[in-house]
Amino acid sequence: MSQFYVYEQAVGIGRTDVAVVIDVLRATTSIATALHHGAVCVVPARTVAEARELARRGGADTRLAGERHGVPPRGFSLGNSPREFSRRRVGGQRIVLTTTNGTAALLAAQSRARDVYTGSYVNFSEILAVVRSALRRELDVAIVCAGSEGRFSLEDTACAGRLVRLALHRLPGRGRVQLNDAARSALHIEKPYDEKLARLFQHADHGRTLRRLGFARDLAACRALDAHPVVPHLVGRELVAL
Amino acid sequence: MSQFYVYEQAVGIGRTDVAVVIDVLRATTSIATALHHGAVCVVPARTVAEARELARRGGADTRLAGERHGVPPRGFSLGNSPREFSRRRVGGQRIVLTTTNGTAALLAAQSRARDVYTGSYVNFSEILAVVRSALRRELDVAIVCAGSEGRFSLEDTACAGRLVRLALHRLPGRGRVQLNDAARSALHIEKPYDEKLARLFQHADHGRTLRRLGFARDLAACRALDAHPVVPHLVGRELVAL
Repeated sequence: MSQFYVYEQAVGIGRTDVAVVIDVLRATTSIATALHHGAVCVVPARTVAEARELARRGGADTRLAGERHGVPPRGFSLGNSPREFSRRRVGGQRIVLTTTNGTAALLAAQSRARDVYTGSYVNFSEILAVVRSALRRELDVAIVCAGSEGRFSLEDTACAGRLVRLALHRLPGRGRVQLNDAARSALHIEKPYDEKLARLFQHADHGRTLRRLGFARDLAACRALDAHPVVPHLVGRELVAL
Repeated sequence: MSQFYVYEQAVGIGRTDVAVVIDVLRATTSIATALHHGAVCVVPARTVAEARELARRGGADTRLAGERHGVPPRGFSLGNSPREFSRRRVGGQRIVLTTTNGTAALLAAQSRARDVYTGSYVNFSEILAVVRSALRRELDVAIVCAGSEGRFSLEDTACAGRLVRLALHRLPGRGRVQLNDAARSALHIEKPYDEKLARLFQHADHGRTLRRLGFARDLAACRALDAHPVVPHLVGRELVAL
């Protein structure tokens, strides 16, 4: 019997074997983009001060990335827009990243899980394979939706629901997988948006906020299904491509 | 333009005019039951120690009620089972109540809202009327799902979704009501359970837990739609019937 749970926040996470953290808009999309474009690693930092300290210790090939209220803090060379994480800018670099929701969720997940990965639409099929493989081995899997400042977020839940649906599809031993309330609910929430990710981002509060802040093109980048086929794996303090 | 938001946890609640706290299994069901059966007030307490202190100060006509891990703490005369809150036991009494999730949600909501009410299926139509009246006056309304130890709970979200759906039904000025992600999602989650509350509690994690703990009859009490038509209103530290 394995547990396949979704958490709508980075709180109350139970012990698990595998955790997948999702922050579609935009942290985990940016992480997959950076690693696929040759970044050596992405180092999540909780605060701007911690990010600066980690970058200082990281040496010459380190770049500061992230946002507060959607924009990069002073002295950061990159924001949290996946379109900034081009091969030219991040190839061969260590990226220290601090974001409002995604980073906190990653570090919370790490305290509860043996292995932590990040998921998004741009690396969806890769993460789906990780989840299916874990469930086939009867491991417990937790999908952690980063949400938005402590609130439920539609796009993370829809992405989680799609993972739950496709991971269970024709899974041998499906009957031995236990879902929680949030996992079952994510299936209902995801249904109307399958293959309609543009509409999903139009409906989502944070999608509308990003459009208002002038990040409309980011939304297109964040729904480019499987554009960056990589499995970001948190090893110590570093996310590296598996 | 008024906001009609759902919060899946008692965190990140924005400022609002009206908040309705929902903890269907079982705190807000018990609160409605107690007030409908003539309790003078229900006083939510955060901890067992605080409950004891409030009861001590409350005098002779005060009773301690609540639970930790589903059962009443030592020295409490009532648990958190709505079936215990009979007219004979609670009539004319002040009830100090401490529960794992509901109480914390109530006090968090109070810090953000001008008026706080509690909702459940047993006082559904009464609370629906409060919400519709607030929206008609273009006030902001927040439905706060208490959840289960920091986690998303199906039954609270389904009850919230039913409130959202019926409050918006033929509401004059519907177009000026802004929903958040959690409110829109609650509509999807509620859909399969409308009028099928027995099935809802069978699916819900906490419904199964309560059945396992021997509280199966509580589940029937918690889905008795409109059985206790009362509007519990938090005034200072006391919930009183409006």
